[in-house]
Amino acid sequence: MKIKKNLIEKTIESKEIFRGNFMRVMCDTIELPNGKHSMREYIKHSGASCIIALTKNNEIILEYQYRYPVGKVMLELPAGKLEPQELPLICAKRELEEETGYTAKNWIELGTCLPCIGYSTEKIVYFLATELTQGSANLDDGEFLETISMPLDEFMLMVYNGEVTDSKTLSGMILYLGYLHKNK
Amino acid sequence: MKIKKNLIEKTIESKEIFRGNFMRVMCDTIELPNGKHSMREYIKHSGASCIIALTKNNEIILEYQYRYPVGKVMLELPAGKLEPQELPLICAKRELEEETGYTAKNWIELGTCLPCIGYSTEKIVYFLATELTQGSANLDDGEFLETISMPLDEFMLMVYNGEVTDSKTLSGMILYLGYLHKNK
Repeated sequence: MKIKKNLIEKTIESKEIFRGNFMRVMCDTIELPNGKHSMREYIKHSGASCIIALTKNNEIILEYQYRYPVGKVMLELPAGKLEPQELPLICAKRELEEETGYTAKNWIELGTCLPCIGYSTEKIVYFLATELTQGSANLDDGEFLETISMPLDEFMLMVYNGEVTDSKTLSGMILYLGYLHKNK
Repeated sequence: MKIKKNLIEKTIESKEIFRGNFMRVMCDTIELPNGKHSMREYIKHSGASCIIALTKNNEIILEYQYRYPVGKVMLELPAGKLEPQELPLICAKRELEEETGYTAKNWIELGTCLPCIGYSTEKIVYFLATELTQGSANLDDGEFLETISMPLDEFMLMVYNGEVTDSKTLSGMILYLGYLHKNK
């Protein structure tokens, strides 16, 4: 990077202003690059893992899940939040098995994305999982989803046609394209 | 879609449980597909627009911006939140000009992404902007960013190398690849 301006904001004070069952909202007093003070409100998130799981026939494992905040059934890569102290790879293995029933022998870290840099600390680590074995899912109580698999090419067409709108999934697919690009 | 299971969650009651300067947190009581009740906490967001602006030399307009929640200077597509009642295209034109100084003659809607389906209603509409004219930026008070342009190919290499980690930007680039795919 060749950034010319000073853009950094410094923390003066950090305060939790709301804690729900799932959500923690922080409000920090900060110092702007010009020395003035301002506020930053954001969600404190534990982070997540997301998995591109491919069968030996080059089918991708996907989930349909109703996402209440957006009021839609979404087609998504398997993903889930980190438990306290959990490493992203352990989380990825656990979530893939719990949600889809699949386990994988081969795991490769593809990279990290930040889904919501304006108002959340969330960080998603992506993994490519291959050499899959199918088992049975073990969903959390109150978790409803449908696992499907489809040819990767067919899914990429859906991506390119705008039929996939989950940014977590789109970011994952571009990381995967990057992986192919580096390994071709 | 050929979804077999009932995945839909119905709203029983919707309640605002926190309102900050920027953030509104909702907590809704919902009915799960199995008839049981549960809660959903989420951020109510007004939506945003995001712009892929290309010069006639096929350079892409980007911004460096410090993102406090993730503690990093990020390389991003220009984007911004909708004002009340504002249409996404109007927002896109306004944000591109305010943040980067560029105006564009030609605007094409590329699609919509949902950056944070687990806990935010946010919807981002993407636009391709071409036939650019350079002017001067007019940043909001307390907004600090640096606008750059670079060859699109060079930026795509950065994307594929994992040097771009903002999901909003990655999703935009895959929408743009999809646009090229459909128009080749």
